[in-house]
Formats: sequence, C-alpha cells, structure tokens
Amino acid sequence: MAVAVVCGGVGAAKLLAGMVRAVPAQSVTAIVNVGDDVELHGLHVSPDIDTVIYTVAGAIDPERGWGLRDETWHAMEGLDRYGAPTWFRLGDRDLATHLFRSERLRHGASLSEVTAEIAAAWKLGLQVLPATDDPLRTRIRLDDPALGDDDEVAFQDYFVRRQHAVPVKALRFVGAEDAQPAPGVLDAIAAADVVVVAPSNPLVSIDPVLAVPGIRSAVAARRSAVVAVSPIVGGRALKGPADRMLAELGHEQSVVGVARHYREFAGTLVIDTQDAALAPAVEALGLRCQITDTIMRDPSVAAQLCSTIVGF
Amino acid sequence: MAVAVVCGGVGAAKLLAGMVRAVPAQSVTAIVNVGDDVELHGLHVSPDIDTVIYTVAGAIDPERGWGLRDETWHAMEGLDRYGAPTWFRLGDRDLATHLFRSERLRHGASLSEVTAEIAAAWKLGLQVLPATDDPLRTRIRLDDPALGDDDEVAFQDYFVRRQHAVPVKALRFVGAEDAQPAPGVLDAIAAADVVVVAPSNPLVSIDPVLAVPGIRSAVAARRSAVVAVSPIVGGRALKGPADRMLAELGHEQSVVGVARHYREFAGTLVIDTQDAALAPAVEALGLRCQITDTIMRDPSVAAQLCSTIVGF
Repeated sequence: MAVAVVCGGVGAAKLLAGMVRAVPAQSVTAIVNVGDDVELHGLHVSPDIDTVIYTVAGAIDPERGWGLRDETWHAMEGLDRYGAPTWFRLGDRDLATHLFRSERLRHGASLSEVTAEIAAAWKLGLQVLPATDDPLRTRIRLDDPALGDDDEVAFQDYFVRRQHAVPVKALRFVGAEDAQPAPGVLDAIAAADVVVVAPSNPLVSIDPVLAVPGIRSAVAARRSAVVAVSPIVGGRALKGPADRMLAELGHEQSVVGVARHYREFAGTLVIDTQDAALAPAVEALGLRCQITDTIMRDPSVAAQLCSTIVGF
Repeated sequence: MAVAVVCGGVGAAKLLAGMVRAVPAQSVTAIVNVGDDVELHGLHVSPDIDTVIYTVAGAIDPERGWGLRDETWHAMEGLDRYGAPTWFRLGDRDLATHLFRSERLRHGASLSEVTAEIAAAWKLGLQVLPATDDPLRTRIRLDDPALGDDDEVAFQDYFVRRQHAVPVKALRFVGAEDAQPAPGVLDAIAAADVVVVAPSNPLVSIDPVLAVPGIRSAVAARRSAVVAVSPIVGGRALKGPADRMLAELGHEQSVVGVARHYREFAGTLVIDTQDAALAPAVEALGLRCQITDTIMRDPSVAAQLCSTIVGF
C-alpha cells in the first residue's frame, strides 16, 4: 500500500497523523504546499511543511494548531524592541527550524533536501516533500480600499497580518509557471495506490500544489485512485477562510463547490455525515461520494477516516 | 568633557558602565573591537558590541558575564536536534539582536548604522561604534598537534570552542589592511579630552581595533591624553586568557608587559594597587603610572575608577 497525500497545513497534518496510524508510515508521501512560504528576518519559513512535520511528530501546540508545544517567545520580544515586524509570530523553539533551513538553503541545499533532514531529525517515518523546490508564492488581491485595484499582497500578509478578515478578489501563484515538481513528487503520485487530497483550503493550499506544471496532470492521470476529503462541512470551513474564500471567488460554499473544483482530477469526494443530503449533487458532477465522519477531533478519528479512505 | 574608550568585551563593558556614571553618557564614545565577530546559522554575531550594549543597559547576565538576563535556550536545543553547531551558545532573547543585525546588514545597512539602532533600542546615552564597518577577523595559529603549522582558526574557535585552553603561536587580523575606521571613530579620538584604553585583552581586543589603518596613529597623536587601564592585575588576567597569551607571544605577563605594548600610544597606565611595586618599571618605559583600585566588582567601583581616569 503506497499513499500520496496532497497537503496544505493544519487539516492535512491532522489527516497525516491519522494516516501513519492506518498504514505503515514508510508507505506515505506528503506533497506539501509552499505557496504560503515567507521570508522573515532573513529566515525562510515554510508554514505548511512545518505544521505537517510538527503534527506528525506529536510536537505541535494543540491549542494554537501551529508551532511547537511548550513554546517561548523571547526572540519575538527582542525583535519587537528593535522595531522589527512581529505580526508573524515565531517561537524560540520553532526558530531553530527556520535558522537551520535558511542556513542549509544558503549553502545550496534544496528545499526538499532540507525538508528531508528536518523530518529525519523529528524521526518521522513518512516522506515529506515540498511541491516544488522552486520559488512559488501565493499572492492575493484584496477588497481593501487602502490598496490599489491591482495591488497584491503576500499570502501571510492576508492570512496572518490581516487575519484573513478582508475579502479576496483574486489569487495568483507567482513562479508557478517556471517551477518544477520537487524530486519524487511525480513518482509518488504515479506509484500510489491511493492519492489523497487532504481537507485543506482548495484555493490556497491545494491549488498552488497543482499549479506546479506536471502535478495537476499527474494527479488527473490517477483520477480513479484520487480521493479528496472535503474541507467544507455543513457549508463551513473547520478552520480558516476556505468557506468565505470559495464564495468570494465565485464557487459554491459547500461540498458541491468543492466537488466542482476537484472533479477533473478526483474520482471520489469524502464528505461529512452532516452533508449526506448533498451526496447526490456531488455524484451528479461525476464523482463518487463517500459519507463518513471527517471531523478529526483526535488522531484516532483521523486514523479511522484514513482507514476508510485507503479501503475505498 | 568628551571621552573615547577603545573597547573589547567584558572588561570594557564594566568600565563603560562606570564611565556613564562618572560623566554624562552623551559625552562617551565606545570604539569596539569587531575581530571576534562570527557568522553562525547565517547570523552576524558581534560579541564585544553586544556585551558593551547589554552591560551598559543593565541587561547583561551577571553570572555568565555575556548574553542577557533571564535567558532561555530553546532555539539552541532545537538547533542541536538538527545537528547544527551549538558550541557557540545563542540565547533566545539574544537571538533577536543577531536576527535584527543580520537582516539590516543584508538590506545594506552598515555595522555602525545597525549598532546605533541597537544601542538606541536599549536607550543607551553613549555612542557605540564598531572600530570598522569592514570585515576584520582575528585568526589564530595554535600549538595544537591536530593542526598543521600554518593552519589558522577563527577567534571564537579558539576562545569558545576550545575554551582558550590551547597555547597561541601567532595572531593575524585578516582584512585589517583594507579596513577603514567606522564613521565617527577618528573624530571621537581627535575630539576626546581623554582617550581611554579599556582593561581588555591587549592582543585580541585592543590590537584589532588599532590594526584598522588610521586608528593607531590617531590614538598615538593624542598620547598625552591616552589613559590605558591594565587588564593584568598581580600578573593575572581578571578574565580570559590575556595573561597566558601575553607569555605565549613573548610579552612579559605583568603590567610592565602591558606598558611596553602600549608605550607608543599611551601616556598613562593605570595599574592596580596590588601592582604598586611595579610602578617604577612602568615609568621607566616612559609612561606615567597611576595606582588605584582597578577591580570593578560593581558599577560604583567602576565609576570611581572612571572618575579617577577622567580626573588625570
């Protein structure tokens, strides 16, 4: 059994923590969004990769859902003293990851190389791959009178600094056209018995992975083996702005909107029992629809969901 | 009253903490060694500058004598997990300084500009100048059978990693020939009523400052106004390897050795009461010799010493 999982951050990380309980960790490859990556204080921060690694390692802070447990914030206090930007919070323990990654990148390592090193240091059994080693960044046009019509902000400027409270007008994945899939990505998709699309934001977590030339078509080529998990439950995102963003960008804010967005490359959509009534609408779009409990309250629920997914 | 102080780290920092009690802080300019600076984890660390700033700000850790009070070490723990070098300890609070400095340098600020910004953030009244904005690094040949005869190590490799436990054969200040004094350095020396040479290691703290073309001659031009404080008391360094290093490099391990090393540019040497018997030998070298309590147990003793210095 080989499983490839197309991943954003929190939702994907929870799913992966369940997946490594449902199947041998060595058989799992996570292919992770890098569109949210950001340079801060000269450090390369890869929020989705880190959330995946920390969560599967059992080291994530369970309250915040990002960063490390038992974290302290002394470096941030110091940066605040110097007037450096502190809206993106980097804990002291977490800083080690960004310092190590940045130094390795400066010395010529690729993002996939240093990601493998970080995953190994956390003794993860699964393989964690960035979607691409090349710079690919999500940029967003916002409905903000303070911005010009064509002004774009970086993803974290929208997501963290503005707390995703401003309506989104358009998305662009800068660098995507020139990006190549990281080594191992296409092979993992081709070799997988099941390709899972994690319950992450379709527009800013999954789409930037698929925007790397070759990845979308590789996934679509496996369509009958592709199982997507809806991040929308009862019309709402469990976390983050996926629900509003779907509506703002002209999609239906429901599992049906997700199904329509994924139909070209996903053969199956897993929806929550709350949305059972929408299964016929999903199937009318040409996807199989599986109904189960998708709210991953803890890793054992996630493992149950993953057993269901790989059993399809 | 204007005072310029040629500085290394700990001893100089204690003297400066006293100086700003003895004279208005605004009248004091510290000219600080950068030969110990080191790049670690992609960060530019300036140990002597930071020791000066943290000490005068009252934020230094009083036990260690370096780094900040109430420090935590979580980033170091994390770097250790990744196998990154951790022999040079950087605390979480302290990391903010290195992150801020490194980012400003990458964006084109000079070391003197960012040093002024850091000093301002700590609300220091005195002016803190690096000796030079250019790269100048102390490199050391060691009497270590594991090293080739011509192998050199960086200063911190000797001082911290090897805990200055290996005999020194030779010193070199790489980059000194091409370095220029940082803006304000020569003016501060020329305008000072008193130029103080702090009780720092003559060979690896004071010499690298004087090795910047123009600084040694600027100090020598003020010889009658130059007051050096001996870092050797009773034949021993109060801190660090200055005593052994003097002997290893062929100097007399006493205030007389210091006097001989400084005689060309210092008109006065301040020695401790313990060394009163050596005053004639110092004076025989052509320096005035002042005898007082030079062991700066606390800032009030340091202030008394500084009042004596500026009163000469």
